[in-house]
Amino acid sequence: MSIVPLSNPALRGALADLKSLLDETAVARDRAGGTAKAERDAIRRSGLLTLAIPAAYGGQGEGWPAILGAVRELAQVDSSLAHLFAFHHLMVASVLLYGNPTQRAGLLTATARRGLFWGNALNPLDRRTHLTPAREGAGERAEESDEPESWILNGTKSFCSGASDSDLLLVSADGPDGVLRVMVLPTDRAGIAVLDDWDAIGQRQTDSGTVTFTDVAVSAVDILGPPGPFGDVASSLRPCIAQSILASLYLGIAEGALAAARGFTLTEGRPWRASGLASAAEDPYLLHHFGELQLAIAAADALGGVALDRLQRAWERGRSLGAQERGETSLAVATFKVAAARAGLDAAGRLFDITGARGAAGRYGFDRFWRNVRTHSLHDPLDYKLKELGVHALTGALPEPGFYS
Amino acid sequence: MSIVPLSNPALRGALADLKSLLDETAVARDRAGGTAKAERDAIRRSGLLTLAIPAAYGGQGEGWPAILGAVRELAQVDSSLAHLFAFHHLMVASVLLYGNPTQRAGLLTATARRGLFWGNALNPLDRRTHLTPAREGAGERAEESDEPESWILNGTKSFCSGASDSDLLLVSADGPDGVLRVMVLPTDRAGIAVLDDWDAIGQRQTDSGTVTFTDVAVSAVDILGPPGPFGDVASSLRPCIAQSILASLYLGIAEGALAAARGFTLTEGRPWRASGLASAAEDPYLLHHFGELQLAIAAADALGGVALDRLQRAWERGRSLGAQERGETSLAVATFKVAAARAGLDAAGRLFDITGARGAAGRYGFDRFWRNVRTHSLHDPLDYKLKELGVHALTGALPEPGFYS
Amino acid sequence: MSIVPLSNPALRGALADLKSLLDETAVARDRAGGTAKAERDAIRRSGLLTLAIPAAYGGQGEGWPAILGAVRELAQVDSSLAHLFAFHHLMVASVLLYGNPTQRAGLLTATARRGLFWGNALNPLDRRTHLTPAREGAGERAEESDEPESWILNGTKSFCSGASDSDLLLVSADGPDGVLRVMVLPTDRAGIAVLDDWDAIGQRQTDSGTVTFTDVAVSAVDILGPPGPFGDVASSLRPCIAQSILASLYLGIAEGALAAARGFTLTEGRPWRASGLASAAEDPYLLHHFGELQLAIAAADALGGVALDRLQRAWERGRSLGAQERGETSLAVATFKVAAARAGLDAAGRLFDITGARGAAGRYGFDRFWRNVRTHSLHDPLDYKLKELGVHALTGALPEPGFYS
Amino acid sequence: MSIVPLSNPALRGALADLKSLLDETAVARDRAGGTAKAERDAIRRSGLLTLAIPAAYGGQGEGWPAILGAVRELAQVDSSLAHLFAFHHLMVASVLLYGNPTQRAGLLTATARRGLFWGNALNPLDRRTHLTPAREGAGERAEESDEPESWILNGTKSFCSGASDSDLLLVSADGPDGVLRVMVLPTDRAGIAVLDDWDAIGQRQTDSGTVTFTDVAVSAVDILGPPGPFGDVASSLRPCIAQSILASLYLGIAEGALAAARGFTLTEGRPWRASGLASAAEDPYLLHHFGELQLAIAAADALGGVALDRLQRAWERGRSLGAQERGETSLAVATFKVAAARAGLDAAGRLFDITGARGAAGRYGFDRFWRNVRTHSLHDPLDYKLKELGVHALTGALPEPGFYS
Repeated sequence: MSIVPLSNPALRGALADLKSLLDETAVARDRAGGTAKAERDAIRRSGLLTLAIPAAYGGQGEGWPAILGAVRELAQVDSSLAHLFAFHHLMVASVLLYGNPTQRAGLLTATARRGLFWGNALNPLDRRTHLTPAREGAGERAEESDEPESWILNGTKSFCSGASDSDLLLVSADGPDGVLRVMVLPTDRAGIAVLDDWDAIGQRQTDSGTVTFTDVAVSAVDILGPPGPFGDVASSLRPCIAQSILASLYLGIAEGALAAARGFTLTEGRPWRASGLASAAEDPYLLHHFGELQLAIAAADALGGVALDRLQRAWERGRSLGAQERGETSLAVATFKVAAARAGLDAAGRLFDITGARGAAGRYGFDRFWRNVRTHSLHDPLDYKLKELGVHALTGALPEPGFYS
Repeated sequence: MSIVPLSNPALRGALADLKSLLDETAVARDRAGGTAKAERDAIRRSGLLTLAIPAAYGGQGEGWPAILGAVRELAQVDSSLAHLFAFHHLMVASVLLYGNPTQRAGLLTATARRGLFWGNALNPLDRRTHLTPAREGAGERAEESDEPESWILNGTKSFCSGASDSDLLLVSADGPDGVLRVMVLPTDRAGIAVLDDWDAIGQRQTDSGTVTFTDVAVSAVDILGPPGPFGDVASSLRPCIAQSILASLYLGIAEGALAAARGFTLTEGRPWRASGLASAAEDPYLLHHFGELQLAIAAADALGGVALDRLQRAWERGRSLGAQERGETSLAVATFKVAAARAGLDAAGRLFDITGARGAAGRYGFDRFWRNVRTHSLHDPLDYKLKELGVHALTGALPEPGFYS
Repeated sequence: MSIVPLSNPALRGALADLKSLLDETAVARDRAGGTAKAERDAIRRSGLLTLAIPAAYGGQGEGWPAILGAVRELAQVDSSLAHLFAFHHLMVASVLLYGNPTQRAGLLTATARRGLFWGNALNPLDRRTHLTPAREGAGERAEESDEPESWILNGTKSFCSGASDSDLLLVSADGPDGVLRVMVLPTDRAGIAVLDDWDAIGQRQTDSGTVTFTDVAVSAVDILGPPGPFGDVASSLRPCIAQSILASLYLGIAEGALAAARGFTLTEGRPWRASGLASAAEDPYLLHHFGELQLAIAAADALGGVALDRLQRAWERGRSLGAQERGETSLAVATFKVAAARAGLDAAGRLFDITGARGAAGRYGFDRFWRNVRTHSLHDPLDYKLKELGVHALTGALPEPGFYS
Repeated sequence: MSIVPLSNPALRGALADLKSLLDETAVARDRAGGTAKAERDAIRRSGLLTLAIPAAYGGQGEGWPAILGAVRELAQVDSSLAHLFAFHHLMVASVLLYGNPTQRAGLLTATARRGLFWGNALNPLDRRTHLTPAREGAGERAEESDEPESWILNGTKSFCSGASDSDLLLVSADGPDGVLRVMVLPTDRAGIAVLDDWDAIGQRQTDSGTVTFTDVAVSAVDILGPPGPFGDVASSLRPCIAQSILASLYLGIAEGALAAARGFTLTEGRPWRASGLASAAEDPYLLHHFGELQLAIAAADALGGVALDRLQRAWERGRSLGAQERGETSLAVATFKVAAARAGLDAAGRLFDITGARGAAGRYGFDRFWRNVRTHSLHDPLDYKLKELGVHALTGALPEPGFYS
């Protein structure tokens, strides 16, 4: 397995503890859905929310292979909480990629010091949020700059993972010029309402519901940049991190399903009567299913090793990242993602071919692997990721930067 | 589509009404689980429980292609209730196949006249039920016959679909000689307890829980036969019907998932941004998924046409059915079953590739197709069905009669 | 198996003899390529070339399910000659669908009486053949009709299966108005040259090479119609027959590969050492491959049963065939075709998983199954057939008539 | 791509030249089959036959990732010659793993100095070769040692890749004690006959035919060891190298097929009429096929990176290699092998879905990719490799050393 361990031994222990804690109640919490307040607080206490924050701002300055390794480990037992954990790091990365030096230092130092947990309200497909200049300030500043100092944010965002119980939100909205801006707002700012309306078939504790914004005051310093989301090549590295997170979650789910299949077979497996065998563990067809799972997971793991290594190298280029290297990173991440999604879907289904009818008992909650990976793998269509791979194979062209590639 | 309509026009209407009724609440009832008392009563009132009962006993004497066509139609909207509906007919068939003339006439005439609903407690893999001779009678009858007149039944059966709220149960148990006997008992007979302990990830309203038997009095006339379960070739046709039911349910689920995909796409589908298309309905990858579903369903449908036709012909042979014809029927049914299970699993997964992320919203309950077919397709392993097909392809040998082939 | 036997017992015997004859030399002739003159003559002598010709014209008036059953049987041993045999019947059908009554009677009576063998030069994708009015006749007839009595044909056609050693050719060409016309020409007419340039990786004895036309005299009576190729719905049934032929060939190849796998395993199979088994025939993985083949072939067979039955019914409608029925036939044939192509490709590959390394010996020529089905399944893209199925599943639309649907 | 370049720049150039030379005539030589004498001599002249020979013996001492990278590059254009090239290095490795210090120094120094090309006659499945003590010496030596000084070799070996035109042969034979011994013999030693009887559907220029041994004199120093083939853990690393070679060949074939698909599409591709597109390169289904190929190749490549890295580390352990590390290496290689075989088979088939009918023209010889990978992937069954993966996934057990794992 290519999981890179965290460099800080204390945090390795904290991660193991957190994983164990999440594992205990994952089946029950999946059934219940809703906000996992206690587990979110355990994540806050773990110290792991500072992983992606540079040491200069009081964080761990951990590399992406290790951060995403931690995500994957948690996803093996609870892909909902792993998702929230991962998206927090994506928000931190967004500040690093989009923010100006003042924003980076201020927001991330505060996050590290105060143990803040970030939520997401950046959903580029949902264009229902709008920024308009605040009236009073519009006139005075006209001569100095094109951008007003004060804005008003209105509208609605769907799929806002981790907004519930969050301290800070990353929010996207269209300005009057139709250009998307990304800002950071405290979740408790007046006018922001996080709805408790997430009810999906999977990833049920990701709180990926709706956030509404009603006359929310936004000041210029809340808006990330320059460079902002389109300011340079480096800023377009965000989707590479986002997609790596997805892939790591899928792969963790695959591993969780394999672990479930293994555990069931070794402890409760019974040979099928027609097999004539004494033990399920000798069944050739069952071993074939295990072999396919092993192969699919190993392939995704190896592609993950390649992709995260490239990601880290690209990340370390900082603002000097070039388009070619960025594109190659995006391609490697896309490859990892498709392989991981398929491994996850395959594992989640084969788990049942392995357990047989008794594995469908509700108490095991084995269906959560499928519901989770099925739900999460819909984030953006795999068919279009494959198309990117195909275009590259045919013409050598690299994926165009956007919010999904 | 190869669905053979019911020959009685009034019952065709009753079926359509029942399907519509089940459809309305299927998503909510899947969430709730438990016994669908109101819907079971609607089935009772529909008149459809007499389909498999010969006209001589007051039933419809309908053929299996039409009966299983009705099962499949119901499964398109509610595979749990379709399952219960189908298993009732399997119990009726069991009486016809295993019972002696008196039992056949008595039990089925009563079923037709009084609208009885049968449940299943015949699970040959669960050997925890035992029949012992009742003490008082054992001595006196020793000279007259090998079999006592009175027995006591004790033990436990799992996976007893439709036992809850049933009127009659088909029960299997081992005798003191280790030979399996099949009997019919009123569900309310003293000592029978139907537990409300079914909690599975799918087929949640099939009440496939546990039934316990505590010193239940069984008389010789309750035990089906001769011929009983192994009396002649004809009696071994039962698994062919059982497996045809499974396949029809899987195929109905596949069709239900396809209908859901179609409905979503036509009413709520949105083209993926990167496609550059105006409508989801033009998306080449989405059409590819629909094409694969159409193909898989059409193939299972065609194999179903072949299998059910053979089944009906074998059925109509009555007691003169030969081993070769029985074996060919079993093979055709096995082929149908594997194709239907794969079509169901494939459709239940692709449904989401087609809808995208919004299709994962809990209100649609689209995951029920997968949970249902995933659960039900574990009844007995597909790998061993494929092995039967393989053995036949290689050597020409036909599946050996048993409870699963 | 759904193969419908020929109704004429003598021809059933002739078919069996022909199959046996082709089988003997198929491997060697595949290596050699070129025109199978001796085998073509055996086909001529068999009497089977009259199968599709109505009894009124001296033929057998056999139905399509039986004709295509004969094609499939021959394809089990020699898909090249089966192809030529089948295309002959397609040419006969083209005359029946496109020709006027005089043409039908004249051409088909001659074919039956003289044992003529037809070749194909109708390739709608290759637009390099052109009909121009012959100079002398253009003036005189201008007042009587829009169409001249005499034409000159020039140009080149590729993929002209069965043109070599043929007696008559069906030829397509664009007229000066850009409209495609279909005509019948004796292969030995002055100006027609059949090139011996077919060298493909598969279907190596189909003589699907180039035919050139140099100032070939064509008279109005040579041009089929009315109705001609677009005259009515019935005439658009031709691609349904053509595609049914392709599917029948693919399915025959699949069956041939399965027969080869069976024969090898039963006579020369050795268990893999690590299996610990005494006989290859017990190997669970090998039986799994056989099971998959059995399933794929059975599914294609069942879909073939459905499709050919529909085709025959549509055929029997004659000129009154409606668009809806024609469309449903086309859809059923498309489904059959995709399933048969996949069964063929799958069987041709798995054959080797079953035989292991010794099956790759050149003397068996087992690769011919793959080369033949791989080549022939490229006739028109399977992806676009699947798209037709997908469009139908989504919208209910039926395939639009053309030369491939 | 994970191909590790050769460390010697001159040899990098020699490899590029050799690849280009093989490419020019690969299609024609595949048709012809037989011994590629001129190309074998070009390999001899290239200097690349010393890659695996330690510097101490006059070789390059190159690592396995680079050696197998060279194998893979050659396999992209000519997998037969790449096979012979690779097996030579396997023979060199066999001497290093099995031989005693004198044998290692003597044989490999001679190989480096004289440019010897090795062939294979070690086929553990073919037990028809036997070593018997030579009569004269048996008596005198009985007191000194259990092993005679002089032996006689008789028997036959099949699948002797590269024996034709070889200078030295690695030969396996059973001794009188039933134990397999491995020896090195000059190909021209009296009594050795290399038959020119290789005629397979693929890998047609690997000369993998029969070698017969008739009263061949073998002396004790010809027999490798100690340690010999079962002397220590290190000696059991041989199958890891052998299987890595197979996987590298399969992956090279996959890449060759992808390159052929790309080249055809960019230069000769035509859009299918029904697509309505101006260029084949825009066809969504074609891009999907390219995407699948890219994914499969990238996955095998990444697994290859992992496996060859492990192999090299194990290799560098020398005689101190432990069983656990050896087992993990074997597992990684097995994973690489299955993924590479599937990538190769998939690519070789999809190539045609991409080119369409025109790609089946014999002049391209595009079927060679499939024939080559289909033939070579039968070396030992993939099903049993998958079983090894499955056993490991279930129990953690590592593959047992043998000649195939």
